[in-house]
Amino acid sequence: MATNRQVVLRSRPDGNPVPDNFAMAEADIPVPGEGEMLIRNLYISMEPAIRGWLDDNDANYFAPLAIGEKIRSPMVGRVVQSNNPGFAVGDIVFALLAWEDYSIASDATIVLQKLPVAADMPLSYYVGPLGGSGLTGYIGLHEVGRMKVGDTVVMSAAMGAVGHIAAQVAKLRGCRVVGILGSAEKARLAMEEYGYDAVVNYRDTDDLVGAIRAACPEGADIFYDNVGGATLDAMLVCMKDFGRIVSCGMIAGYNQSDTPPPVYNLWQMVARQLEMKGFLLPAFADKIPEALAAIEGWIREGKIKVLENRRVGLAEAPALFCDLMSGRTIGKTVLEIDLVDEAA
Amino acid sequence: MATNRQVVLRSRPDGNPVPDNFAMAEADIPVPGEGEMLIRNLYISMEPAIRGWLDDNDANYFAPLAIGEKIRSPMVGRVVQSNNPGFAVGDIVFALLAWEDYSIASDATIVLQKLPVAADMPLSYYVGPLGGSGLTGYIGLHEVGRMKVGDTVVMSAAMGAVGHIAAQVAKLRGCRVVGILGSAEKARLAMEEYGYDAVVNYRDTDDLVGAIRAACPEGADIFYDNVGGATLDAMLVCMKDFGRIVSCGMIAGYNQSDTPPPVYNLWQMVARQLEMKGFLLPAFADKIPEALAAIEGWIREGKIKVLENRRVGLAEAPALFCDLMSGRTIGKTVLEIDLVDEAA
Repeated sequence: MATNRQVVLRSRPDGNPVPDNFAMAEADIPVPGEGEMLIRNLYISMEPAIRGWLDDNDANYFAPLAIGEKIRSPMVGRVVQSNNPGFAVGDIVFALLAWEDYSIASDATIVLQKLPVAADMPLSYYVGPLGGSGLTGYIGLHEVGRMKVGDTVVMSAAMGAVGHIAAQVAKLRGCRVVGILGSAEKARLAMEEYGYDAVVNYRDTDDLVGAIRAACPEGADIFYDNVGGATLDAMLVCMKDFGRIVSCGMIAGYNQSDTPPPVYNLWQMVARQLEMKGFLLPAFADKIPEALAAIEGWIREGKIKVLENRRVGLAEAPALFCDLMSGRTIGKTVLEIDLVDEAA
Repeated sequence: MATNRQVVLRSRPDGNPVPDNFAMAEADIPVPGEGEMLIRNLYISMEPAIRGWLDDNDANYFAPLAIGEKIRSPMVGRVVQSNNPGFAVGDIVFALLAWEDYSIASDATIVLQKLPVAADMPLSYYVGPLGGSGLTGYIGLHEVGRMKVGDTVVMSAAMGAVGHIAAQVAKLRGCRVVGILGSAEKARLAMEEYGYDAVVNYRDTDDLVGAIRAACPEGADIFYDNVGGATLDAMLVCMKDFGRIVSCGMIAGYNQSDTPPPVYNLWQMVARQLEMKGFLLPAFADKIPEALAAIEGWIREGKIKVLENRRVGLAEAPALFCDLMSGRTIGKTVLEIDLVDEAA
């Protein structure tokens, strides 16, 4: 009989997560009840936000996972059984599901939606540029940052899942785009292939503020922030008056949610009359169709390039997630679930 | 011959300012040139913002004062000579002027304006509830905080110049108002006379977050922040989702602009989808007439009470400013310039 492989939380990470914080488990493949369906999971979206769900405190928008509980993440999967009139076998869906071969979903499942899959788009893109990463960047720049032609946009985690797509969106909208990133390889890719006008390698300087000011001498109209901490602190003194800080993520603190990194320069919020706004994608659900159509069109036309860091095999999920949280990965990190039980 | 007494910067404060950082000087009463006028200064607005202008760094929106330079502040004065067709002798004006008996003003003077003085309002109110303090609070709540009936509004420096007026405005607009303040006397006044629904004395608790949560169990829709630092840090975990933080001032850092206090909880900007916005009054100049009319009307009807901490005598200005920066003062701190040379 086919089994349902699962990845569970073995122990809470202390700082950077390690693969040993996770364990593999097995269960029977579940049977959908009334209104439910069985999903064959295909692509796990590896996201820094998951790190916060592993800690036992109240800092997050989700309650902490219990030890032994399955890890969750945004996921693309295929409906293989359905008792829900809204979904048919074969539908491709997006939802917050568990790291396992098969999950049960229902109308109560968080962010469950049938995906309008385009035949010429790789399915994995729906957890990346056509999923939360790309849509968040597009909507953050347009709706939260009120981006306009000629703006200088600074992007932290510039070659991350959100950053490398959002940078290209900003460039296509007529902005000057400056990236903050952490390796020579990322810097090369950013400048040569992903449309950045300038980059700052924060690991390469003792004077981050000076390096940012050199890259954008007139300051930034928009800081699209995926990092927080010292990067945000530096940018606070590099903003133009009336600049907007789009707070998408603060990965600098995700490995230490009990002791987040300090930020000192908030007086600049007053002195420069800045706006800082945090957001999560569901609050902008009505803007998703426009964002999806725009990004899909640009990918099709070759105007947006997608960089995936993809690995295959459910058992690889813990190691891949730990890689992501180390800051070493480039582009969108995706786990493709291997189909060992597909014949079952 | 009459002289013009002046207060100048003798040395830069190290932390809390002391009277010895200032010195008295004398000069001839200046003669207005073409387009200029001579102002008899009447009321000095003592404001924490002045502290930032005394430091020698680039953290402020004004360039640092030089040693020996006159201290500046918002001021109410009377035109005593005029070569400017827009102003007549006897006009009462508001402007950024120096701590001295007589100043020269012209159309280039910062925030110069003829005041529409109401006969039944004390002139000193035009540096307080009818000046920057009151207008900033009114406009910050309405325009920046988008205050609406039923909101829970938390006010830091609750019995300060801005706080005690803004709290009454919020109450008149149908909000629940919670104050954060630093003495039992302030707490008593806030609850008994200035309309607060609840207060938190931060000097009285080892658990500021717990105390704030007890005072507003459902969280704050608006945090009107005059303080920053640890107060802001605590409020970041006490905001409702989609709450607005109105950054009016960050006095917690004004005595140490080279080493401002850390803030750790900015992740809550994302997790709670918060907005933080800093502002300075001149950006909302078009809203001032409405705000002025509203506050003046409420004072006249007895619906807004004004608390002044007024002292008389230009030579007292340094000591009064140091008192203000100690956090001990209550209400709007005003220096009334004594009229020793009035007969000249």
